[in-house]
Amino acid sequence: MTEHLVVIGGDAAGMSAASQARRRRGPDELRITAFEQGDFTSYSACGIPYWVGGQVPDRDSLIARTPAEHRERGIDLRLRTRVTEIDLDRRRVRSRRTDGDSGGGTSGDGGSGGPEEWTGFDQLVIATGAEPLRPPLPGFDAPGVHGVQTLEDGAALLATLRRDVRRAVVVGGGYIGVEMAEAMIQRGLQVTVVHRSAEPMATLDPDMGRLVRVAMEGMGIEVVPGAEAKEVLLNADGRPRAVLTTVGEHPADVVVLGLGVRPRTALARAAGLALGDSGGLRTDSSMRVEGAEGIWAGGDCVEVLNLVSGQHQHIALGTHANKHGLVIGTNIGGGRATFPGVVGTAVSKVCELEIARTGLREREATAAGLSFDRAVIEATSRAGYYPGAAPMTVKMIAERGSGRMLGLQIVGREGAAKRVDIGAVALTAGMTVDQVVSLDLGYAPPFSPVWDPVQVAARKLVSGRAVSGT
Amino acid sequence: MTEHLVVIGGDAAGMSAASQARRRRGPDELRITAFEQGDFTSYSACGIPYWVGGQVPDRDSLIARTPAEHRERGIDLRLRTRVTEIDLDRRRVRSRRTDGDSGGGTSGDGGSGGPEEWTGFDQLVIATGAEPLRPPLPGFDAPGVHGVQTLEDGAALLATLRRDVRRAVVVGGGYIGVEMAEAMIQRGLQVTVVHRSAEPMATLDPDMGRLVRVAMEGMGIEVVPGAEAKEVLLNADGRPRAVLTTVGEHPADVVVLGLGVRPRTALARAAGLALGDSGGLRTDSSMRVEGAEGIWAGGDCVEVLNLVSGQHQHIALGTHANKHGLVIGTNIGGGRATFPGVVGTAVSKVCELEIARTGLREREATAAGLSFDRAVIEATSRAGYYPGAAPMTVKMIAERGSGRMLGLQIVGREGAAKRVDIGAVALTAGMTVDQVVSLDLGYAPPFSPVWDPVQVAARKLVSGRAVSGT
Repeated sequence: MTEHLVVIGGDAAGMSAASQARRRRGPDELRITAFEQGDFTSYSACGIPYWVGGQVPDRDSLIARTPAEHRERGIDLRLRTRVTEIDLDRRRVRSRRTDGDSGGGTSGDGGSGGPEEWTGFDQLVIATGAEPLRPPLPGFDAPGVHGVQTLEDGAALLATLRRDVRRAVVVGGGYIGVEMAEAMIQRGLQVTVVHRSAEPMATLDPDMGRLVRVAMEGMGIEVVPGAEAKEVLLNADGRPRAVLTTVGEHPADVVVLGLGVRPRTALARAAGLALGDSGGLRTDSSMRVEGAEGIWAGGDCVEVLNLVSGQHQHIALGTHANKHGLVIGTNIGGGRATFPGVVGTAVSKVCELEIARTGLREREATAAGLSFDRAVIEATSRAGYYPGAAPMTVKMIAERGSGRMLGLQIVGREGAAKRVDIGAVALTAGMTVDQVVSLDLGYAPPFSPVWDPVQVAARKLVSGRAVSGT
Repeated sequence: MTEHLVVIGGDAAGMSAASQARRRRGPDELRITAFEQGDFTSYSACGIPYWVGGQVPDRDSLIARTPAEHRERGIDLRLRTRVTEIDLDRRRVRSRRTDGDSGGGTSGDGGSGGPEEWTGFDQLVIATGAEPLRPPLPGFDAPGVHGVQTLEDGAALLATLRRDVRRAVVVGGGYIGVEMAEAMIQRGLQVTVVHRSAEPMATLDPDMGRLVRVAMEGMGIEVVPGAEAKEVLLNADGRPRAVLTTVGEHPADVVVLGLGVRPRTALARAAGLALGDSGGLRTDSSMRVEGAEGIWAGGDCVEVLNLVSGQHQHIALGTHANKHGLVIGTNIGGGRATFPGVVGTAVSKVCELEIARTGLREREATAAGLSFDRAVIEATSRAGYYPGAAPMTVKMIAERGSGRMLGLQIVGREGAAKRVDIGAVALTAGMTVDQVVSLDLGYAPPFSPVWDPVQVAARKLVSGRAVSGT
């Protein structure tokens, strides 16, 4: 008998799941219907800052697989169609065409459109993604104030940038904030980043975030800490004139929002599915929604297990979404796959500055009830005598007593960011700092000092341990 | 009572051991004497190709710590002094000043010089390094035929390059061979690499070595496989005219030898210390020579345990030598440290081409009695749409049945080499390919596709397993 798989959400997690299930089970065995409220499938939202900045020439470059390509593979893809209800009892979803809607809004919030339709399912994949935080404050919905989550958002921002804009204010100092600061610099604008915390990149410890701020300032970016946005002040034409924050008024012709996202789970909540503390769906390691048979979830709408802290958290990243999709599609396709969890790895850059983290920040380690030691060292990306050797600062923390590595942060230039992978694998394996010192990492003068910077940090922790143990 | 530590060999392993021991025990507790037959200490032999190539401006850039710096730290350093005998029964070494010798020769082979002297020891570190293979064939000791192991070698080669030389033949297609090919290209010479195996870089599988050959040929380097050197043919002035191999005559004004090295263990052998099959000293994980109390060895003169194959092998690499020195110095200094072994990681480059390997080649896996599957994939260093995304080929092998990763090889452009660290850490942890697929690696478009190339290879092995398991 043919099973029916319904997928809600046509981006990374949803379409990876659909594709993988299709690869394993042909149309005779598995019918697949996917609902997507927008016009696009399988695109790289992470690439939007580089499209806006001009490093990526056009929108289509960001699309990994088009609707037509999915349809060719036997997936019944319904674009511009919003799922408005999940009926778990009767195993069906209600949907409505959104043609004629203002488009791109959040799902599950009603709105006008075409007639409603019910579609039954045997297996359901919830991949509704995340929605950007947009403060309900005056002026934040004006033209010229832009989120950057969807391709439509990117196109709208680019349209604004074609106007006579000179000064950009980026609200938020996290990954999206710093990447959009770079994009605005690339476009030749004068850039101010306003953010709430003491230092930008609050996913790093403040001492490392400080390095990011200093580097950004060196690039001519104005960084305003401790600034809570209050209002976007508008010109007579209804477009931005300035952003008003708790610390002042920051002139702006264009405003970019990088305030992070939250899981888009209104549909799932309404259906009675269990959500975690973060507001994301809680799944087991096979990506099955806890307590619900044949209901799967992945991507930015779920929360994930942090293997270092043992706690669940919400992390919206395309790389996780793709893995979730692979796992879900494999399992629906009759295989067995699991997503064991994350270690909190993230890399980013702002112009020449590379920023990376994995594992726990100090605050997270403390919250997880761990006591720890820290080491911060300076090193270079290549042998010091080799041309292009770039400085980097490496911070590592390790559990006191056991020496188990807990976290790694790197801020530097070329060659800094991907070094964090050493830490990501070591954290996954539960290695101690002594084990990290012994790792057989690639060494040659063009690629690394004879001790890799990550090992220099680990050595410092080991020698600290040795001293404190005496 | 003051103990006396004697170190034989003033480069990475020996002087790291001395420095680390000194850091932990002051001169009142530990007297340290180090013998070095040459003029230099603690230098980067791995950097010589870049000094010769001109990327590194001068010899002194390669010296990490000068003799004077070691002496300031209370190490009695005897330069130009060769140890000629280790007397284990009476715990003493015999040494002789080599001033006036032809210099730079192998140790333990007698020769004239100053008077002999005996020095007693409580602890002995043997760090005699490795000696380059130089075939006992006609012409190979002529001026204009150069090894590149010591700073003296580098200076001699540079002196030759200042003459009117146009054509270089590099004998050997391994790391030293390809790095010296790059150096000769940098110097504007016409370069031929002759080597015995079917493809260069025999530390890779032949299918990956082939990529290196094709890339080298694209750079204008002539690569001659299956060529066993027979003679260096000389001009009337006693300098090279051509290299004669089993496949022909290759015109050369300068000849560079990159035939690899073997452990320099004549002294240790004469003293009755046990050597492994590779000819290297065999130590336990604390770097103590097996069966000998208070005798330590590290660096290029020892063999190391390969954690993947479980077998011992000889790998001459500065990064291992430094770790050995740290471990030895820590243990002599009253701490506890171990060197658990290696996984066979090595990275190199030839011009823009990056070359990396870790774990076992197919041949090594077979020799270790393992059956395995292989995957070879093409990927890019960054998101495909991001500027500068460079192609790379990734090969992974995994044990059939268990799925345990066994080896990883990468050939590509910028961003290829250090990715091998992901494999190095995963191999150390004994991860399966499924676990590699799940790794939380750093992702952002400027740094990686959404699936890291290493994970793409692992995915292919996983799906092969899934298919073969059906």
